[in-house]
Amino acid sequence: MAGALSRRGCIKIRGPQLRELLDSKCNILFDCDGVIWEGEKAIPGAIEVVSLLKNQGKNVFFVTNNCTRPRDSYMQKFTRLGFTDVQKRDIFSSAYCSAVYLRDFANLQGKVFVIGGDGIYKELREAGVPFVESEPETPGMTISDCPLHSDVKAVLVAYDEDFNFLKLAKACCYLRDSECLFIASDPDPWHPVRGGRVTPGSGSLTAALETATNRKATVMGKPSRFMFECITSQCGADAAQSLMVGDRLETDILFGANCGLSTVLTLTGVSTIEEAQANLESDSPAKQNAVPDYVVDSIGDFLLALKT
Amino acid sequence: MAGALSRRGCIKIRGPQLRELLDSKCNILFDCDGVIWEGEKAIPGAIEVVSLLKNQGKNVFFVTNNCTRPRDSYMQKFTRLGFTDVQKRDIFSSAYCSAVYLRDFANLQGKVFVIGGDGIYKELREAGVPFVESEPETPGMTISDCPLHSDVKAVLVAYDEDFNFLKLAKACCYLRDSECLFIASDPDPWHPVRGGRVTPGSGSLTAALETATNRKATVMGKPSRFMFECITSQCGADAAQSLMVGDRLETDILFGANCGLSTVLTLTGVSTIEEAQANLESDSPAKQNAVPDYVVDSIGDFLLALKT
Repeated sequence: MAGALSRRGCIKIRGPQLRELLDSKCNILFDCDGVIWEGEKAIPGAIEVVSLLKNQGKNVFFVTNNCTRPRDSYMQKFTRLGFTDVQKRDIFSSAYCSAVYLRDFANLQGKVFVIGGDGIYKELREAGVPFVESEPETPGMTISDCPLHSDVKAVLVAYDEDFNFLKLAKACCYLRDSECLFIASDPDPWHPVRGGRVTPGSGSLTAALETATNRKATVMGKPSRFMFECITSQCGADAAQSLMVGDRLETDILFGANCGLSTVLTLTGVSTIEEAQANLESDSPAKQNAVPDYVVDSIGDFLLALKT
Repeated sequence: MAGALSRRGCIKIRGPQLRELLDSKCNILFDCDGVIWEGEKAIPGAIEVVSLLKNQGKNVFFVTNNCTRPRDSYMQKFTRLGFTDVQKRDIFSSAYCSAVYLRDFANLQGKVFVIGGDGIYKELREAGVPFVESEPETPGMTISDCPLHSDVKAVLVAYDEDFNFLKLAKACCYLRDSECLFIASDPDPWHPVRGGRVTPGSGSLTAALETATNRKATVMGKPSRFMFECITSQCGADAAQSLMVGDRLETDILFGANCGLSTVLTLTGVSTIEEAQANLESDSPAKQNAVPDYVVDSIGDFLLALKT
């Protein structure tokens, strides 16, 4: 960790310095929400930055823990917001990466039982990963008398607004078989919704299942390394030539550090420069790993740098 | 801990030694399942042991983490199985203790939002603790548009077969208020059901909420000390004059140790003498605390001892 510590400086960067950093990297990874868009509005400069980087021949990737949409729906959003150069293959969501993991990495010997929504089901279908179709609720049915599928060999947990006790109990029963894989799309504990309310995240549902089964899920989303392994397996990206740009220290920046990437914190989202500084000064190794190499005010700074 | 270590010996005890131990205690606390009954059958000797202890003027208490039944239902079960001397006031279930905590200990300034079943609702009603009535599901309603109650000042989580995403999300919203109490009936992670299947326990549902809120619940059930505080507050029981008899090391025996009670492990339930010995030889303070002072084969040994 000493080498990493001396390297990560939380350095405010812009202009020629930022240009030099971008010139030195082939692969630029962006988180989406709070980095390139905010809800239904692109962050100023984001559209041009993605185009300029692509025109320079760089690989641009979008890595997001949001598992609720399939990549086709992301493509629609990119188009709707005015991005013209994004391809489906550039998008690495936790739903897509979960499907890739089950198809290419997990040696799955049966079907997947899903706690999750449309984004998950669509990516599994597109990847050709066999899964148990979502089962309609039967009032009064309990775990004692409900049918279970003998060919389930993995449980995948993601954000699921139709989560209920029977789904949780079924997943517990499947996971009694120690050979049944236990996968979580992302570790996000909660998300903000309208009016100051909150909604539980995949991490919350995963915690229920981890406690009930005394097992730990293999997590696909940031800060786990798997999303970068997924990019590497499909595009041959090299960590030393890659840069991660994100707005959350504990997911995006820690993900970059875990994968050996250079990292930039952008201040248009969740984390503040004060929190980054506090991590820098912390004695906790976990917090030290969530210190960005560099800090920018916004992706707009990239545009200024690229135009100099 | 050194004193406790030298005291707890995992000593197999019977006959006059066991008689002496029982003679030295005023209060005998029994776990129910696996100790005095097994499903719908009393463990041989249990009925007579309870009667004999009561006839000797001892206080006999039943302490159970099962929160699904109100005490009236426990009374019916005691009667059905042939116990004749049990009073409702002898029963300290996690549902009842949760209601007592909210009524007498918590300085509750509003209503309780419940994740739980009939056992919880009935005990709250009987204790006069105000709560939000169970709300019927409205298809398609989400946390963005559902009504919330401004007077909720506590969330109580227990075993709930009607648990669903919206309940979890509502509880998360209530717990955003740091003054809203967060109570869990018991920490049990799962329970066995018919046919080798399992069902998630209160501890599983609590973990989902703890993760989503980044808060820790105050737990009522064993091994937390509160059940003994509840007994003490109602009957003035003294720890030095009390004996805890249970079948699970990590709940019953640890509960006894946490409360400063003498403890007896009975081998008619979940834990084995090998597990008790392994805890005795462990370097982990948590496991050392889950070593019983004494071990009996069955509550039947109490009967032999009391009749000598």
